[in-house]
Amino acid sequence: MRSLIDITDFNKEEIDGLISTAMDIIANPSKYAEKCKGKKLATLFYEPSTRTRLSFEAAMLELGGSVIGFSEANSSSAAKGESIADTAKVISCYADIIAMRSPKEGAPLVAGLNAEIPVINAGDGGHCHPTQTLADLLTIYREMGRFDNLTVGFCGDLKYGRTVHSLIGALSGYTGIKIVLISPEELKIPKYVRYNILDKHNMPYEETKSLEDALPKLDILYMTRIQQERFTDKAEYERLKDSYILTAEKMGLAKEKMAVLHPLPRVNEISVKVDEDKRACYFKQVLNGKYMRMALILKLLEEKALDPVNRLSFGDLPLDTTNFKCNNPKCITQVEQELPHTFKCVDEEKGIYRCVYCEKKSTDTF
Amino acid sequence: MRSLIDITDFNKEEIDGLISTAMDIIANPSKYAEKCKGKKLATLFYEPSTRTRLSFEAAMLELGGSVIGFSEANSSSAAKGESIADTAKVISCYADIIAMRSPKEGAPLVAGLNAEIPVINAGDGGHCHPTQTLADLLTIYREMGRFDNLTVGFCGDLKYGRTVHSLIGALSGYTGIKIVLISPEELKIPKYVRYNILDKHNMPYEETKSLEDALPKLDILYMTRIQQERFTDKAEYERLKDSYILTAEKMGLAKEKMAVLHPLPRVNEISVKVDEDKRACYFKQVLNGKYMRMALILKLLEEKALDPVNRLSFGDLPLDTTNFKCNNPKCITQVEQELPHTFKCVDEEKGIYRCVYCEKKSTDTF
Amino acid sequence: MRSLIDITDFNKEEIDGLISTAMDIIANPSKYAEKCKGKKLATLFYEPSTRTRLSFEAAMLELGGSVIGFSEANSSSAAKGESIADTAKVISCYADIIAMRSPKEGAPLVAGLNAEIPVINAGDGGHCHPTQTLADLLTIYREMGRFDNLTVGFCGDLKYGRTVHSLIGALSGYTGIKIVLISPEELKIPKYVRYNILDKHNMPYEETKSLEDALPKLDILYMTRIQQERFTDKAEYERLKDSYILTAEKMGLAKEKMAVLHPLPRVNEISVKVDEDKRACYFKQVLNGKYMRMALILKLLEEKALDPVNRLSFGDLPLDTTNFKCNNPKCITQVEQELPHTFKCVDEEKGIYRCVYCEKKSTDTF
Repeated sequence: MRSLIDITDFNKEEIDGLISTAMDIIANPSKYAEKCKGKKLATLFYEPSTRTRLSFEAAMLELGGSVIGFSEANSSSAAKGESIADTAKVISCYADIIAMRSPKEGAPLVAGLNAEIPVINAGDGGHCHPTQTLADLLTIYREMGRFDNLTVGFCGDLKYGRTVHSLIGALSGYTGIKIVLISPEELKIPKYVRYNILDKHNMPYEETKSLEDALPKLDILYMTRIQQERFTDKAEYERLKDSYILTAEKMGLAKEKMAVLHPLPRVNEISVKVDEDKRACYFKQVLNGKYMRMALILKLLEEKALDPVNRLSFGDLPLDTTNFKCNNPKCITQVEQELPHTFKCVDEEKGIYRCVYCEKKSTDTF
Repeated sequence: MRSLIDITDFNKEEIDGLISTAMDIIANPSKYAEKCKGKKLATLFYEPSTRTRLSFEAAMLELGGSVIGFSEANSSSAAKGESIADTAKVISCYADIIAMRSPKEGAPLVAGLNAEIPVINAGDGGHCHPTQTLADLLTIYREMGRFDNLTVGFCGDLKYGRTVHSLIGALSGYTGIKIVLISPEELKIPKYVRYNILDKHNMPYEETKSLEDALPKLDILYMTRIQQERFTDKAEYERLKDSYILTAEKMGLAKEKMAVLHPLPRVNEISVKVDEDKRACYFKQVLNGKYMRMALILKLLEEKALDPVNRLSFGDLPLDTTNFKCNNPKCITQVEQELPHTFKCVDEEKGIYRCVYCEKKSTDTF
Repeated sequence: MRSLIDITDFNKEEIDGLISTAMDIIANPSKYAEKCKGKKLATLFYEPSTRTRLSFEAAMLELGGSVIGFSEANSSSAAKGESIADTAKVISCYADIIAMRSPKEGAPLVAGLNAEIPVINAGDGGHCHPTQTLADLLTIYREMGRFDNLTVGFCGDLKYGRTVHSLIGALSGYTGIKIVLISPEELKIPKYVRYNILDKHNMPYEETKSLEDALPKLDILYMTRIQQERFTDKAEYERLKDSYILTAEKMGLAKEKMAVLHPLPRVNEISVKVDEDKRACYFKQVLNGKYMRMALILKLLEEKALDPVNRLSFGDLPLDTTNFKCNNPKCITQVEQELPHTFKCVDEEKGIYRCVYCEKKSTDTF
């Protein structure tokens, strides 16, 4: 039995397999209409996210299964102080697969380690959101017909935009990918993405502050929302939020076959006039997300049928449970009772340790 | 493809068609038990309404379909600032038909204009609630066997009671209807209903402050709740709320075949003792609402199958997008980004313009 | 037609019948997979309870039925002041059976008296929670193979723990049961349980403050959570909450075949290390709860099919509606309009009357 917590849990072949299942679902929906008959998906959403939740629910229903769950924390037992681990064990008695959304980073991993059924991370704080990346990948594939030799621009909030980091990571397995990073100084891509993905995989990239300058080169333009909730300084948000708005005029600078993606919801970073442009693919992306979630649910249920043992672990890196304490306020370790702070050594030479749950670097030592 | 935003979107023949489908569903429920197999209804409720939401959900389930959705705004992406237009486009990827409830007047119209699937208005603020009117009509039909030659009394809050205005409108197509308006001075029927419906269709009506005086004449008594949330002045609410309470004693004044309707929920405007009276039809009305929603879902899905193009528009009246600004705080134009304030000319002679979304009269000119 | 409001609504034979249905469901799940096809369960949860709600929903789905409902009061019409009686009548138009959770004691009884479909009490304040007791009983039966000749310990909050009172009541019908009551002074079992159950059925029991002393004797250890919400004095809660924590070490004192039960959610009253102990049965209990709810739904729907008349009543005791007023702030009589305060004479000799809804003793006389 496997779970999907981070997009890196799947290798390139497995992602290609999901894409090919999704393409088959699109071509032959009726073939899949009863595949999950009698199966139940539990959508455990500790924070609201209509789009993601309804995408999972629609996916399961189109497979002939059914859905139980909750859509925000105060409808759940969390208010009574139940641990994620216990919830995962309880839900294992009711459902066949879990999709979990949480503001606490690492919560789906804790659930996955404790559940007797597969767990899908439907977004954990600013950490991971792997099914969004699956939606992005299918959209690129359907619009471009390939993953190789593409120039992919990312625009907006590249610092906090987890979908950006995740998609760059997923593209790192393909050849001929060029990355263009378009953002204000304050929201540039973090160093660890630069070092661990771009540099490590020798992906050529350039950085610019100008959307206009970048546009003519791009095959894919991945727009992101500047999320108010990520800012502590309201004034900084107000100053930046209108930068990098994609308008119908700017679209005139782009290639005829470019595809515009956006993880949605948008506020005003893409003018609604762009919606009519045939290169606007963000609503297609929503549809593709549903198909990839269908493929994913099928894959995880099939793997569980073949091998019911929970194979989720902290990975192969050396662990440390005594020397570090995670001080990320959004980390699941801050709220979960009896959860030992555990760090993995990601760079033995430099002695860099990261929390296994939220992947924040260790800063406190005892 | 069509939507139902306002009861006037359907003509008399279409409403008669819905009633006859509903009667057939009542007679042969099993014939309809799989009609919507594989179809999904999205219940997008931006404000809670158990009765209406569960009625739609029960309707879809009894047709063999399934349901996704949310039951209040803070479970939705609305909190992140997504527009109704975008939500409608996204949900079109997940579901086959939408039922939308919103405190913002005109929100379902915006959704309907942008969705690729039919939209049903499940209530938008004080504006429209067409499926309640469908429930009312089926109840009158089943209790009286006809729509012609009826004396119909409306009691309570006739000023803010949108179900009252809507039912009077729907009855205006039939012959021999007499209307009796029973309300305190402060809650009398608004002028535009008086002019645009009663006068325009030559419907005889009388106004009275006394429920007792009116009761003996009536074939139908439509009771309404005096809604606390419509009042800005709490003291006025307290003074009026106990007026016009229907009691078992007062029922003694009524005809033997009268039917009492109420859109529910009631607070105390009908004594629970009246429930035992066989003329009390408000719970039958609930059941009838479910059957009419079943008929409506079927009709809209059938029309979409025959003609997938979205036919919803602002209608045939001359439009103005430059001279007026809607200042109704409950109008969807107050919150929806990039939604041009648009007015329709409802009376060319007098130069009267109304907002296409909330139908409030223009007051501001530039 | 019958409802399940209090576990005492069912006699020993009926509970044995439910257990035998549950055992058959466990052995032959596919036999039951379509039993409720076309039927709808309404989960009316006026306060959140993920575990209980999802257990009911999973139960109905595994019987091939479907589910509508709400998961907290502010998603419901309750905010508009609708009575429980009216809600029950309305929901009878939409669903085939109701599971109701309410913070108001007696609310499910009011619903059951007014509904045209069976009502299951899914927990009403500190009053009753009969389906938890059904889960407990099936767990004891599956772990021990019998109900007779067992020493059953109850540990923790025995004063407010409704599941404890209810299980003791259910066990009173069997022979050879010994009860061990383990609690701090402040949370000892209430007098009415002592007199009305233990003494009345001649059940031998002992009381102790020490979990360690009690452990070696027990066949069943029923742990409970010290619920913060039951305390008015926060300091008292802080002082007591860590008492009676079950640890792996303490488990060394217990019999090899003991079963540990807990109604969940736990906070820290059972160390997570105990989870690995094969005597830890609290997650099995969750699974058993689902099976018993399946058996219960089947039983109530079958009884309704045979006899549609609502047989729920206040029972056979003499009633008094004029002399007493319930002053329990959690009683449904405090909020429900037009609900006469009604008392039943539970002890004619001593003149003891209890509210029919919440079972609090009368204290006010007029």
